[in-house]
This record gives sequence, C-alpha cells and structure tokens, in this order.
Amino acid sequence: MTPSRLVFRESLPSLSRDPAQSFVLLYDRRAAKSLARFSRWRDRFEVSYALSAGEKLKDVHSFAHHIARLVPMTRDLPRDRTRIVALGGGSVGDFAGFTASVLKRGVRLVHYPSTWLAAIDSAHGGKTALNVGGLKNPIGTFHPASEVVLVRELLQSQPRSRARDAYGELAKIALIDGGAWVKRLSASTATEGDLLWEFLRPAIASKLRIVARDPQETSGARAVLNFGHTLGHALEAHHGLNHGEAVAQGLIFAIEWSAGRGVMDRGLADEALQWLASRFGIVSRVFELKPVPRGEFLRILSQDKKRDSDRSVRFIFLEEPGVPRAMSVSLAELAREAARQGWVRQGDR
Amino acid sequence: MTPSRLVFRESLPSLSRDPAQSFVLLYDRRAAKSLARFSRWRDRFEVSYALSAGEKLKDVHSFAHHIARLVPMTRDLPRDRTRIVALGGGSVGDFAGFTASVLKRGVRLVHYPSTWLAAIDSAHGGKTALNVGGLKNPIGTFHPASEVVLVRELLQSQPRSRARDAYGELAKIALIDGGAWVKRLSASTATEGDLLWEFLRPAIASKLRIVARDPQETSGARAVLNFGHTLGHALEAHHGLNHGEAVAQGLIFAIEWSAGRGVMDRGLADEALQWLASRFGIVSRVFELKPVPRGEFLRILSQDKKRDSDRSVRFIFLEEPGVPRAMSVSLAELAREAARQGWVRQGDR
Repeated sequence: MTPSRLVFRESLPSLSRDPAQSFVLLYDRRAAKSLARFSRWRDRFEVSYALSAGEKLKDVHSFAHHIARLVPMTRDLPRDRTRIVALGGGSVGDFAGFTASVLKRGVRLVHYPSTWLAAIDSAHGGKTALNVGGLKNPIGTFHPASEVVLVRELLQSQPRSRARDAYGELAKIALIDGGAWVKRLSASTATEGDLLWEFLRPAIASKLRIVARDPQETSGARAVLNFGHTLGHALEAHHGLNHGEAVAQGLIFAIEWSAGRGVMDRGLADEALQWLASRFGIVSRVFELKPVPRGEFLRILSQDKKRDSDRSVRFIFLEEPGVPRAMSVSLAELAREAARQGWVRQGDR
Repeated sequence: MTPSRLVFRESLPSLSRDPAQSFVLLYDRRAAKSLARFSRWRDRFEVSYALSAGEKLKDVHSFAHHIARLVPMTRDLPRDRTRIVALGGGSVGDFAGFTASVLKRGVRLVHYPSTWLAAIDSAHGGKTALNVGGLKNPIGTFHPASEVVLVRELLQSQPRSRARDAYGELAKIALIDGGAWVKRLSASTATEGDLLWEFLRPAIASKLRIVARDPQETSGARAVLNFGHTLGHALEAHHGLNHGEAVAQGLIFAIEWSAGRGVMDRGLADEALQWLASRFGIVSRVFELKPVPRGEFLRILSQDKKRDSDRSVRFIFLEEPGVPRAMSVSLAELAREAARQGWVRQGDR
C-alpha cells in the first residue's frame, strides 16, 4: 500500500490543468458554501457532483442511486487517468472513497477533508464504508487516497466549536503514540482550530505508522486505533453523542479501567486524566448522561465489529502513554466495569 | 496477489466441518436443482442464500437489495474466518465476488463454477463486477478467489450444447498461448464437455500466467485476454449472441484483420481459421447475421472499457499462435474493417 501524499495549504490550491488527468469532484454542498471562491474552483473539474453529507448518504441504496448518475457522467474518462476528489467530512469521504474503489474497478482518490474529525482521522488509513439497513459500516473497502490535501481555510470555515469534536481523536492518538510531539502538544498555548492545525501533521503521521503495520486490519496491530472506541460507540449509538465527544468519554473509561485492572499505574492514570482535562477540557460526563440499560449496552456491543468471538471483544487498555495493550475481555466483564463506572444501569436486561 | 488454489473433483466435495471457519453459500437456484444431493450439501453451510442468475442479478439496485438481507444473516460471523462460496455461472460469480470483496471490507471467496464459460474463464483472474443503469460492468473490484473448485458432475449437468458456448474462450486462450497443450488439444478426439474437462487445467493455467503479469489491469499486459472481444462485445450487444459464441466470431474477425494488415502471415491465418472450424466447429456467421448499422457499432464501441482514448481502442492482433500483439486502432479504422468483412453496414450513421 503506497502511503498517501500529505499536502498542507492555507487556501484551496489551484487545480493544475493537467490535460492527461481527469478530475471528478464529489463535494458536500454545505461545506462548499462556506468557501468564497468555490464555484470558480469547481468549474475547473471535468465532472462535479454535489452531495448532502450525513449518514443517509452512506446508505447502500443511496449509493446505488448516486452511482447510477455518476457512471454515465464518468463513462468517457479513462480509468488510469481519473481521480475522484472528495471534499467533505467523514460521510462524504466514506462515500467517495467507496465510489473510487469500485468505479472502473478502482480509480485514484484525493481527499479534501472539510471537518477536523476527517482531517485528523477518517481521511487517512484507507477505510471506506457504506451503511446497510441502519447498521454502520458493514460493507466497505480498503482504498487509501493517493493524496490528502489539508486546507486551513476550509477547516477553519467550520464553526469554531466543531474543533472540539476532534479533540477526542487527537487525544487518543497522542495517548497511544506518546512521542516527542505529545510533549510539544502539552506545552502549546494554541486552542481549537489553531491547536489542531499545529498538530495535524504529527497526529496523522502517528496514525499512518500504525496503519502501515496492518493496512487491511488482518494482523490485529491496527486495533490499537480503537482505543476509547468501545464505550465510545455505545455512547454514540445510545445517547447520540457526536463521534469525537463519544470517543473522548471512552478514553476516560479506558484509562480508569486500565488503572482498576492494574494494567496502568494509578498515578500515571490520574496524570493522563488530568492531562485530558487541562489540555482538552475533556472531563467525565457520566453524571449528566443517563446510564445505558445493560441489555441495550450488550446489544450495541454485540454489533461491534471488533468482537473476537460471540462473547468477547478486543479491548484496548493503556499501560502508559505510548504503550497500548489489546486484551480480550468478555462482554459480561465489560458491562460490569461500565456499570461500576456509572455508564450502564446494572441489573436490568 | 496470491493465486487461487485449483481443485478438481468428480462430484461435490464434502464440506469439511472446520469449526474455525464459517461458510456462506450464495447459489444459483437453477444450477442447484440439477444436483442430486444438493440440499444435503447446502445444509452444512452456516448461511445459504439462493439467487436467480442473470444480468438483472448484477444490477447495483439488486445488489443493494440482497446485501440488505445478507448483512444481518452474516453479522455474527468473524471477518477473518468467513468464506463466501459462490455456486453458479458468470453472473452469480460476479455478484458473489463483488459481495465478498466488500462484506466486512473483504472476506475470502470460493468459486464453484456451474457453467463451462465460468469454469474456463470468469471464475479466474479476480475480476468482479456489477451493472449500472443497463451498462455492463462499470463498477467492480479485483478480488481473486482463494479457491476455485471445478466439479465435473456440476459442469456436466448443464445441457450438452452449453459446452459449445465455452469453445470461444477455450479457442481464444489456445490461440494467444500456443503452448504444448494446444498441440494435445488439436490431437484430442474428445468433444464437448469431455474436451473441456480434459483441457480446463492448462487453459486456466494459461489465463492465470497472463493475469499474474498484470493482476489489476494497470500495465496493459492483461489486455491480450481481450483477443476476439472487441467485435465480440458488439455482436453480443447488438445481436444478443451469447458471450462465447460472440467471442468465437470475434476471433475470426481478428485473425482476418491480422492477415489483412500484414501482422500475420496469410498462410498462418488460414491454418488458424481452418483449426477453429475443424477443432471447434467455429465458422463465420457473417452471412446469416444482419450487418450492424455503423452508428450503432460506433456507439457500442464507445462504451468499450478497453478504449485508450476518445477515438481509439487497443485491438489485439495475432502475429502467430502464441504471439498476440496489442495495437491502438482508431474507431474509424475498426468500423471500416468491420464493414469490409461484412459485419457492419457501411455508410449509414
């Protein structure tokens, strides 16, 4: 797997008019609205196609609908010279990535992430996905972008508060990486978009190092990226928290459990929790969210694709910053710990 | 790309009850009917799902419909231990191959081809495809089967005449390979299913040697497999000939043109045409088929994915048996030659 080329730009780069390349733009019409010179930029594409971002876009029936329009529009473009350019957040990236992986049996893909969450996480690593019958991501492909273009103007055009949505993923990668850049992150006085922009490059590099060890998720090495995601997914599904916020809560849960199990030193765990609070404002919301009924919690977990058998999941603990450890835990154990920490209502089915 | 394991069996092999593997059967309900012990065999699969073979099955909307049923049925199966077993002809193989390539971002695939055309050609080489809006194969993936099981009982259960449908592809691979097995093929006294069964192994091996040089169709080496297919596709689309028969006619066209252009010695071309007639009963049907109107012919060609630009296609000529040569020819040239040989009605639009 060739790694994606990363490009950092202050504003939308002018599209080089390479006559040997055909560019097909799939874009989130809402993200595009916030860009002053968007329509002039769009006009340079051979084909452009507006999408409405969101989980509905990713439904397989919506894919069937859109691909029936995209195939005639792109039929005359030669496979080896066609690039799909995806401008949008996670849902547009997943949809366009899947489309690029199957159109003409695979054409090149360029991501222009428009949300911080996509910029820091989903645009990298090659996963594409569609939803089927209300389930998230049961089908998809591995199709890494040949290029990911990070445009500061595009990312900063989001409401400032959206930057905080990405804090969970930034904190996650910092905790499992623990490299020198994390010290700089701790010392930085930047906030929100400025902070994210400053640390996009090392955070992405850290994710890509992990992906490179296990590009198609076969060896298990990639599973550490799931740190914070087990409880996170349950909170996302049950409480409708956004992904970044749910992951942030999942980090607290995983650190607490790492300490409780003796995997992590209690002092280190408290330092990590303190760091989440002071650096990112990530504090436990367990007291304001109603506990998830135990039966519902187990039902959500049983749909988790990271399960390693009917009755257990690979859970990512932390020994210390930079040292994640995957361990198999039973669903019953997990529910018990979640109840102990107050996320789950014990005793009901 | 790991090459598929080839397995030859007289009858349906008993499914080893490996508790570490989950087998999902997708089968052509019609092909299954001809097998005496099919339902007992089917019962050993964790999941089995009947399909109605044909081009409609391959439509992307049909895929969306079926995948919405298959996802819940397979949700509990772990990705790395799931195998999709496809029993059917080309359309079932394409559909099941595409499904295997995207379910859980890719699970293993086993083909049990039920038609000679699939056994000799489409089950090998890793191409999967869906149709979109009436167009054939504009989307798909490369997802080679981990295993292809050739079952004589299954293949022989087709009407005997269907064997002749595969002669075109067998003759094609023999002409572009030209190896020692082709001499044995010429000398064999077997016919129909017996002939095909006898030469399945070397014919498949020959195709796989070519595929191995260009597994994802990027270098161009794989294009020689398109020998006979340019005119073939037009006859298939316009006259509704079956694929094998259309390719057979395309071989005659390509050999004639190779001689006419001076790429092939006239004497060698006549020998090759004579061989097609005597070995396979493949003779020109140009006198019984109405010529394709030129405009229609160009319209079909302009949809051909083997085009290398707006106005030209890669056409596969033959220098001598075993020595194919790809050359770029303009659509106008191609139409002129097709008219000269009587396949196309010159002068009309």
